[in-house]
Amino acid sequence: MKASVLFSGGKDSSLSAILLEPFFEIELITFSFSLLPVGEFVSESAYELGYPYKILNLDTEILDKALKMAIEDGYPKNAINYIHYNAIKKLASIKSNSKEAIADGTRRNDRVPMLGESQIQSLEDKYNIYYITPLKGYGRSAVDVLVQKYLEIEQNQSENIIKADYETELREIIRQTYGDDKVSQIFPSHVQSRIIKRIK
Amino acid sequence: MKASVLFSGGKDSSLSAILLEPFFEIELITFSFSLLPVGEFVSESAYELGYPYKILNLDTEILDKALKMAIEDGYPKNAINYIHYNAIKKLASIKSNSKEAIADGTRRNDRVPMLGESQIQSLEDKYNIYYITPLKGYGRSAVDVLVQKYLEIEQNQSENIIKADYETELREIIRQTYGDDKVSQIFPSHVQSRIIKRIK
Repeated sequence: MKASVLFSGGKDSSLSAILLEPFFEIELITFSFSLLPVGEFVSESAYELGYPYKILNLDTEILDKALKMAIEDGYPKNAINYIHYNAIKKLASIKSNSKEAIADGTRRNDRVPMLGESQIQSLEDKYNIYYITPLKGYGRSAVDVLVQKYLEIEQNQSENIIKADYETELREIIRQTYGDDKVSQIFPSHVQSRIIKRIK
Repeated sequence: MKASVLFSGGKDSSLSAILLEPFFEIELITFSFSLLPVGEFVSESAYELGYPYKILNLDTEILDKALKMAIEDGYPKNAINYIHYNAIKKLASIKSNSKEAIADGTRRNDRVPMLGESQIQSLEDKYNIYYITPLKGYGRSAVDVLVQKYLEIEQNQSENIIKADYETELREIIRQTYGDDKVSQIFPSHVQSRIIKRIK
């Protein structure tokens, strides 16, 4: 069975693909609003992992609505979940009735981005696909052990690392619309990872 | 890294072991109160899967307390969760500071048996082990597809299938103490699976 894995270039989505690899035919998928050349940022990471890789576009009105949410809330959680849900939904509609798998890198303790149980069930039922989160049963420390075994990563503060996650373009649209200060107000600085190499 | 997978002889625990196999050194573990020869029931399934297999005993006072809970509640959910938590805790204490993994077959939509997030975190922190649920990110239909690909199973109503799950011995202690009618009052009949063969 084919599995399309949502890929940000970070360790969680990379490890998710590696865990699925023995059982599925993997393709990495990155969504972009074309606001930044996110595909260029991560195509090298995808190549290093050794999987086919595709960039798909999301309507900019989704980013506009996410921008409004982030500004109104003063924090990015709901905005990022909104983009994530729409990305999964778009991929599910493309894969409609294929009975293929769609996967992402959600971990056990993740809250953002994360689909709710009813969202998952309705996407699976409506589009006849399987939504799989291979890391959902793994805690942070187990993930770290596996990442160390299979991946060489670069870690840095979120504002210094360019990834193909939704955060990168959401930060950019906030920066373009409201300036740098607003970005650091809304996004607490946190450590992000980008994969450099796969260890075989 | 070694992973001890709680094994009932059913499809979920078997598939969990198969999903972990490329990344961990698997050992199957079955817990028993020695009320029934549960080990004999499933040692053949374990052999078919091709993993080393061990039976460990749980204190009968845990079964006594579970019996009380099931009778008081009138349903088995809390009693089974209580036994499951104590089984994981015992295995974690045996594996204390080993930095090994302990796994079980919990699926995305499972409610029984299932550990809560704070129970998991406290077991991981106290015993310095990794608790992993490889199927937690898989829904029922995705599990069914993989089971069909990798396992030959027998399915039957729960009262007609002998497995090495906690239900089998909990049913037996209720039967011995209160008779057959009480068993069917407390346990709704549901389909259980037992693996026959691994498809390679």
